[in-house]
Amino acid sequence: MAQQHLDPTDPTTAGPVTADALADYLRAQATEFLRALRLHRETGPGSASPGQEPGNAARALHHAARRITGTLHTFRPLLDPTWSEAMHPELAWLSGTLAREHAYAARQERLLLALQRLSGAAPFPTQPAVDSRTRPAVGSRSAGADPVPLKAEPGTAGPQSHPAPPDRSNLTVGAAKAGALLERQLTLARTRAHSAALQALGSSRFHAVADNVAVLASEVPLTPTATTADLRPLATAAHDRLCDAVTALPLLTAGHPYNAEALVHGLSPDPAPHPQDAPWHHVRLLLRLRRYAHEVLEGDEARVDVRMLTAGTALNRHRDASEAAAAAAAAARTPRIAPATAYALGVLHADQRHEVEAARFAFQQSWEKKAMSTR
Amino acid sequence: MAQQHLDPTDPTTAGPVTADALADYLRAQATEFLRALRLHRETGPGSASPGQEPGNAARALHHAARRITGTLHTFRPLLDPTWSEAMHPELAWLSGTLAREHAYAARQERLLLALQRLSGAAPFPTQPAVDSRTRPAVGSRSAGADPVPLKAEPGTAGPQSHPAPPDRSNLTVGAAKAGALLERQLTLARTRAHSAALQALGSSRFHAVADNVAVLASEVPLTPTATTADLRPLATAAHDRLCDAVTALPLLTAGHPYNAEALVHGLSPDPAPHPQDAPWHHVRLLLRLRRYAHEVLEGDEARVDVRMLTAGTALNRHRDASEAAAAAAAAARTPRIAPATAYALGVLHADQRHEVEAARFAFQQSWEKKAMSTR
Repeated sequence: MAQQHLDPTDPTTAGPVTADALADYLRAQATEFLRALRLHRETGPGSASPGQEPGNAARALHHAARRITGTLHTFRPLLDPTWSEAMHPELAWLSGTLAREHAYAARQERLLLALQRLSGAAPFPTQPAVDSRTRPAVGSRSAGADPVPLKAEPGTAGPQSHPAPPDRSNLTVGAAKAGALLERQLTLARTRAHSAALQALGSSRFHAVADNVAVLASEVPLTPTATTADLRPLATAAHDRLCDAVTALPLLTAGHPYNAEALVHGLSPDPAPHPQDAPWHHVRLLLRLRRYAHEVLEGDEARVDVRMLTAGTALNRHRDASEAAAAAAAAARTPRIAPATAYALGVLHADQRHEVEAARFAFQQSWEKKAMSTR
Repeated sequence: MAQQHLDPTDPTTAGPVTADALADYLRAQATEFLRALRLHRETGPGSASPGQEPGNAARALHHAARRITGTLHTFRPLLDPTWSEAMHPELAWLSGTLAREHAYAARQERLLLALQRLSGAAPFPTQPAVDSRTRPAVGSRSAGADPVPLKAEPGTAGPQSHPAPPDRSNLTVGAAKAGALLERQLTLARTRAHSAALQALGSSRFHAVADNVAVLASEVPLTPTATTADLRPLATAAHDRLCDAVTALPLLTAGHPYNAEALVHGLSPDPAPHPQDAPWHHVRLLLRLRRYAHEVLEGDEARVDVRMLTAGTALNRHRDASEAAAAAAAAARTPRIAPATAYALGVLHADQRHEVEAARFAFQQSWEKKAMSTR
């Protein structure tokens, strides 16, 4: 596939874009980070009204951290190296820590919905992935001017309610038991992730990050030469890295429906049997970096690129299904489970691996469309 | 979909086709039946040289019986009703009985190959589905001028060798145990089918069928009016029945890759969870009847309709995968199996249900192509 340049026909990015746009973007994201942090501290379990969703604040915090991290990466040559090299891993640590609880909740919901579907039962009413109305938000107990280290209190700080369990009357014994097992294991993982996030938000390491972001909100440490630089070549480079990585994907296979590739190692003795997923996860990351680069260039006028969005959605689904399949396989290794439970987990694992394959097909379809329309 | 008529543009079938063609076809199939029966009796374990495959004779017998049955069905109005109504169920019984052993052998091979694939192992060398060189052929012991009733002798009449077991060194414990369990169960089913076929070929019921076929080889009992009839409307009716049945299939869904329909009842508590397969099995049967009707009309000049062949291949695959999935599910209900075995069987079941879905997609693709090219 020929490398495509970053929308050379687009009038909004046709001229050079100065480092001001980069500074504006980073300041805006830093401000968003601080706003989310403030919201977080305010919306404790006592202060949050039923309509408010403190989970949204955690997500906003996570999103801002991720955007700053991505931008530091793409525009690294224009930013003070000492500062950005210190900042980058800290923000990555933070956004990783904040993402985990939500990921476990989403995985749990995905797997329980799949079990319902596989049982031919009507899907149970959709529950919010994390029921945030009756559960204290991450960091909500550190509701002071300064975050203070807070030790997680098991049983009070962790999730206190879960999505209502699905109606299991239509499930086989195996499906019901598999669902209960997954719910138990993923709830435990969620609780641990919740505690870890609480601890992170109360740590001195987080204080340092928050302080740095507060500085960034007013003063972006550009290099001396950055002021005369054009941002576009760096954004184009991000786009090209994406295209190169996509070119290396097995798109020809992915474009053949039912190629049965994703399940090839479904029963492999290898404990990490899906190295085949890694290049797709990498493209997912590069796609996000390209999107942030676009946002930097286009500022408030950033348009939604529907095809890139579709490609990104497919790769999110790929990641979610890949991790859900791994969770089902891991649950099947629980000692002393009933054969019926193990059987249901096997069906579930294969089902999710086929979701992986379906997501690759969806990505291939959206990407080929993209490639054709920009030629 | 508009009903398509039976190749109205085809010069070989453009004019009326007389009942002579029907009589010729039935005589030829009856002769083939008798030839296969003779070969069967001659190629006992003692007389078969290593190059000969007595299994082929059983298959030829089965194929001829199936063609006669199908032709009786499609051209029923032209055949003596008393005779054809007596003959039809007897031939159906025979071809059903003869097909079973081969079906179990093929199912076993399909499932063991799938387990290899799912383990990421190199496939083991392909074995003939039924290793017929070292095993007595069905009916080989009744090697007289007249078949005599023969009681199956367990342990000697049954399969005496099986395909070499696959190299299990690359399999997980679960996959290896699942493979061993399936091999045991399907070998038992094969042995029973073998005995049943032996008993059938030695029965007085079979003698009566063979006698009737011998008569058919020289004298086809047409109705008095048949001599002036045109075969084409009856063949067209067979074609139309096929098209109607295809129209009732969920082809729109099948044409969307990864629709996840085939696994919808993968964990259903219903013991017969796949009524969704039945219409496809029915189309498979109608496709075969249409093919035989074509053979009657075209005689020795019967051409291979590649698209119809592709559609038929897809539906054979559909049937095989459907039955293999059921066999994996049935094996998982064996008492006291290890969880790892059950897990592998769950993955295998889901894999085969996805094969079912893939086969429907392949059928849809070939059928739509057909519909377009004949418009």
